[in-house]
Amino acid sequence: MRKKVLIVGGVAGGASVAARLRRLDENAEIIMFERDEYISFANCGLPYYIGGSIKERDNLLVQTPEGMKNRFNIDVRINSEVICIDTHQMVVKVRSEERGEYKEPYDYLVLSPGARAIKPNIEGIDSQKIFTLRNIRDTDKIKTYVSENEINSAVVIGGGFVGVEMAENLKQRGLEVALVEAAPHILATFDSDIVVAVEKELSDNGVKVILNDGVKAFKDEESSVEITLNSGKKLHANLVILAIGVIPDTEFLEESGIKLGTKGHILVNEKMETNAANVLAVGDAIEVVDFVNRLNSTVPLAGPANKQGRIAADNIAGLGTTYKGTQGTSIIKVFKLTAACTGNNQRTLNRLNMSNKTITIHPFSHATYYPGAQMLTLKLIFNEEGKILGAQGVGNDGVDKRMDVIATVIRLGGTVTDLSELELCYAPPFSSARDPVNLAGYVAENVLAGRVEILTAEQFRAYPKENTILLDVRTEKEVSKKGYIEGAVNIPVDSLRERIGELDKGKEILEYCQIGLRGYVAARFLTQNGFKVKNLDGGYVSVLRSKYKRN
Amino acid sequence: MRKKVLIVGGVAGGASVAARLRRLDENAEIIMFERDEYISFANCGLPYYIGGSIKERDNLLVQTPEGMKNRFNIDVRINSEVICIDTHQMVVKVRSEERGEYKEPYDYLVLSPGARAIKPNIEGIDSQKIFTLRNIRDTDKIKTYVSENEINSAVVIGGGFVGVEMAENLKQRGLEVALVEAAPHILATFDSDIVVAVEKELSDNGVKVILNDGVKAFKDEESSVEITLNSGKKLHANLVILAIGVIPDTEFLEESGIKLGTKGHILVNEKMETNAANVLAVGDAIEVVDFVNRLNSTVPLAGPANKQGRIAADNIAGLGTTYKGTQGTSIIKVFKLTAACTGNNQRTLNRLNMSNKTITIHPFSHATYYPGAQMLTLKLIFNEEGKILGAQGVGNDGVDKRMDVIATVIRLGGTVTDLSELELCYAPPFSSARDPVNLAGYVAENVLAGRVEILTAEQFRAYPKENTILLDVRTEKEVSKKGYIEGAVNIPVDSLRERIGELDKGKEILEYCQIGLRGYVAARFLTQNGFKVKNLDGGYVSVLRSKYKRN
Repeated sequence: MRKKVLIVGGVAGGASVAARLRRLDENAEIIMFERDEYISFANCGLPYYIGGSIKERDNLLVQTPEGMKNRFNIDVRINSEVICIDTHQMVVKVRSEERGEYKEPYDYLVLSPGARAIKPNIEGIDSQKIFTLRNIRDTDKIKTYVSENEINSAVVIGGGFVGVEMAENLKQRGLEVALVEAAPHILATFDSDIVVAVEKELSDNGVKVILNDGVKAFKDEESSVEITLNSGKKLHANLVILAIGVIPDTEFLEESGIKLGTKGHILVNEKMETNAANVLAVGDAIEVVDFVNRLNSTVPLAGPANKQGRIAADNIAGLGTTYKGTQGTSIIKVFKLTAACTGNNQRTLNRLNMSNKTITIHPFSHATYYPGAQMLTLKLIFNEEGKILGAQGVGNDGVDKRMDVIATVIRLGGTVTDLSELELCYAPPFSSARDPVNLAGYVAENVLAGRVEILTAEQFRAYPKENTILLDVRTEKEVSKKGYIEGAVNIPVDSLRERIGELDKGKEILEYCQIGLRGYVAARFLTQNGFKVKNLDGGYVSVLRSKYKRN
Repeated sequence: MRKKVLIVGGVAGGASVAARLRRLDENAEIIMFERDEYISFANCGLPYYIGGSIKERDNLLVQTPEGMKNRFNIDVRINSEVICIDTHQMVVKVRSEERGEYKEPYDYLVLSPGARAIKPNIEGIDSQKIFTLRNIRDTDKIKTYVSENEINSAVVIGGGFVGVEMAENLKQRGLEVALVEAAPHILATFDSDIVVAVEKELSDNGVKVILNDGVKAFKDEESSVEITLNSGKKLHANLVILAIGVIPDTEFLEESGIKLGTKGHILVNEKMETNAANVLAVGDAIEVVDFVNRLNSTVPLAGPANKQGRIAADNIAGLGTTYKGTQGTSIIKVFKLTAACTGNNQRTLNRLNMSNKTITIHPFSHATYYPGAQMLTLKLIFNEEGKILGAQGVGNDGVDKRMDVIATVIRLGGTVTDLSELELCYAPPFSSARDPVNLAGYVAENVLAGRVEILTAEQFRAYPKENTILLDVRTEKEVSKKGYIEGAVNIPVDSLRERIGELDKGKEILEYCQIGLRGYVAARFLTQNGFKVKNLDGGYVSVLRSKYKRN
C-alpha cells in the first residue's frame, strides 16, 4: 500500500526524514510543508555569512524545493504553514500563500517545526534595529541593515552559541561589539572554570563582555538603540542582536492532543513517535532523553536533528531503529580559540545530585619538540566507578579531536580506564606517545585509586591556610618567569629528595607545579614519606585560567 | 621488603617502567641499564631533526640520567650492556664501559631492549655512506655527514614509516631523493587503494618512488654509492638510508631460557610477564596480541611501548593491570598529506581468511560552505555482524581526528551502527552535521542491510562489460569538467526519474557519481524500480585515487 507521509518543516530534521524515507520507500507519497520560503539551509553557517567568512549566499542553500522534487520526488510546499492537526481524522490544515487554507490527509505525519528565538516582553523590543537570527530571512535582514546603513556598533544580548558566534562575526566585520549575558558566565553548557578562557578570548579580541546583567529596556534613537541593563548601565548601539534562547514552534499543536512538555516541546518515545498514532516528531521542537543522566532535556543542535530525522524515516519504513538519547556534544570557534564539550557538565550533575569527580589537565596538542604544539585544557567528569559523565575542552589545535574521542567513549559506556588504554594516532605532528586523552585517563585513575588527593583551583584558593605549607615544586626559573601563588615556598621537584628535611611533617602540604604532572610526582614522593599532601589539579595554569575576570 | 628491580633499556618502554614504578613504590631499588649514551630520547622526532623542522638537538633529549636520579631516584647506568641473564640465580651480567663486567642480582627484571635496523648481507653494505636510523648516535652521524659533505642526493631503501619520513625530510633539506620499496606499495600497514595517495604525494613533491624493486648490491664510489636494484636499474646517491625494518635486540637472551618467538621477539602474557619468574618485557622487542585478530604480532610503536611499560610497573607493584593487545593505530605526515590507520587492513584479514567487507567514502573535513574544507578518504573494514575490524584514512585536515574516533570504537568493541549513532562535535569550522565517521557508519549499514550492492574501483574496472549499462549520474558539467569512465552514459541523478525510460531493464546497471552518495540515491531509485544495480563505492574519486601509478 502506498503510504502518504506529511512532513511539517523542511530544514535539518524534516529534510532528513524526506530524503531517507524516499531512499527506503520509492512508493510513498511524501509532502513537505515549510512555512518559510527556504528549505534545508545551512543554519549553522548564518553567523559566518553575516560576518563575511562565507562569501556566497547561495552556499547557505543546501537544497531547493525543485531539487527535492527532481532527486527525491518530494512534493515540497513552501510558504505553507500547517496550522492545526486532527489526529483522529488523520488530517492537517494548511495555510498556503498560494492556495489559501486547505486540508491534507496523512497516513504518517512527521513534525519538525523547529524552534524560534525568544523575544521577551521588554520595553522597546519592537525596534527595527533589534534582530533575531533563525533563518535565511533573518540573515538577509541583518545583512541588508548592516550593509545599507552606517553601522559602527552592535550589542548582542545572550551569550549562548548563537550570541557568541554573532559577537565574533560582527567584530570581524569591524563593528564595536558588546556581549551581554544575564548569567555569571556565557555558554551555559560549559562549567565556569572552562568558559573563562572563552570570555578572555572575546575580550582580548575587543568584544566587551558584560556578565551578570540583563536587559531592562530598549529605547529607539535616531540611528541607534539605547539599551538599559538591570544594573542601570546604559549601552548604545546601531544594531542589537537578541539571542537569549529559543522556544519550540509548537503553538499549532495545542489543540491536537499531542502531548507537549512543560515548555511546549513535543514528547516522543525512542522511535520518535508521539502519543498520537502515526505521528512522529524530530528536531529542536522535541524533548529528548539526556544520554548521560537519562532525564528529559531539550538540545537544539543540528547533529541530533539529522539523526532523529533518519530514525523517524526508518520507523515509518518499518526498520525499528531507535534513538538512544542526546549527549549534547558541541563545539564553538571563538576567534582563535576552540571550546568543546560533551555529556553533562558539573553544574548539571551537582544540580541533579549525581555524585561526580573531575580532573583537569593542560597537555599539548602534539609532541612539544615538534613545531607548533599548543597547550589545551581538558576537564574530565566521571563517577566513583570511573564511568565518564562529561568532558570539556578549550584551546586551539586538537581540542575537537580529543572531545570527539571522549564523546565516543561516553557513547559506548566507557570508563577512565578505557581512556588510558585507547591506542590513538601518534606521530610528532599529531599527538604525543601518551595522547592527552590517555593522560586524562591516567590522572583520573590515580585519583580514583586514591594515589593522590587533588584540589581544584577554587578549592585550593579557599583551603584553610593554618597549619599548611604551600609548596611550589617548579624550577626557580619558572617561578620567577611565570609568577607564583603568594606565600609559596619553592623546592623544585628534582631537589625535593635532597631537601625533604626542610618540610615540617606536622603540617599539611598544598603543592603545585605548572600543569599538575610534576606535582603528582612530588605528591607521590611526599605521601610515601609520611606527609599529608594535596596537589593542585592542573597546576598553576589552572589558577591562571580560572582567575579571569571580565574587564 | 625492598624490591630490587633491574630494567634493561632506557628509552620509551624502560623509562616508562622506571618512572611509573617509582611513583607507585618509593622504596624499590631501581636500576636502569642502557647500553647507549642516551636514555628516553624522542625516537619519533629523529627524522624531523635531520630534516630541520626540529631545530634544537636538545629538544630530542626528553630525560637525562641525572634527571632520572634527581626526580625518581633511579640509578641509571649508561654505556652499560646487559649481556646475559641467569633466571635461576636471578642475576644479570653487565658489560660497562666504566666498570668492566659485573653481576647484578634482581628481584624483578624488566626487559626493554628495543629493536635495531635490519642490515642484510648485501654486497657493499658496509659503505660509510650507508646509514640506518635508530637512535641519537645514528642521527648525529647522518646530520654530520649531510652537513659536512657536499650532499646532493639520497636514496632511501625501504618504504616503511621511517623510510617515508626520511625521504620527506631529506627532500625538505633540498636533496634529490629516491625511495626504493621491494613490495608493490610502500607503508604495508595500509591497503594499496589508500596508500597510492601517499605515493602520489611523494612523487608530486619530487621524491622518486620506485616500487617492486629491491637492492641487489651497493658499490662505494668517490663521493657516492652506486645502488644496483634487482631490476638491473642503477641509482647513484651521496647518501643511502637503509630502512627496511627492524629486528628485536634479543641475542643476549638466547641462553637465558626466556621464550622467544620465531623472529626473536620475547613472549609475554597479558601482564607483560615472560615465562621466567619475575622477568617482564615491554616495547619493540616483544610479541603482542593483535587486538583485532587475536594472533601474536609485532608492532614497534612508541604509544604501545609506553603503555606496556606502565603495565609492567603496575604488575611489579601488585596492581594486576593487563594489556589487552595492540591495534596498530598509526599515522604519518607526508608533505601536506596525512595518512592514518587502525586495526587490521584488508590484506591481513584476507590472508587470515577472516571475512570482511569494506566501504570507502570521500567526505569533506568540515561543512563545505565554510572556507577551507578539504576532501579526505576513509576506508572502513568490518565483518558481517557489523563489528569494525579496521580503518584507514588519507587526506589533509581532520584525518587524524576521524581515525582516532574509529580507533576508539574498535577498542570498545563497537559496530558500524555505533559509528552512525556517535554524537560528535559539530560547528561549520570543524565538521558537518553528519560527521564523516557517521557517514561511514551509514554507508556500511546500508551495505550490510543489502540496501545497495557496491563494487570497489578495482572490481568496477574488472566487471564484465557484456549486458551492462555503465551509467554516470553526475551533472553534465561535472562530466565534462572532471572526466569520466570511458563508455559511460550520462543521466544526472536529478533527471533519472524523468529519463528512466532510456534504460534497458534487461541489462545490469553499473553506476557511479563523484563520491558515491548520489550514486546511492540513484541505486535505491533504480533498484526499487526493478533494475539490477551496482554502485561504485566512493564514486569517480575512488577510480581516480586508486589509479595512481608511479612515475
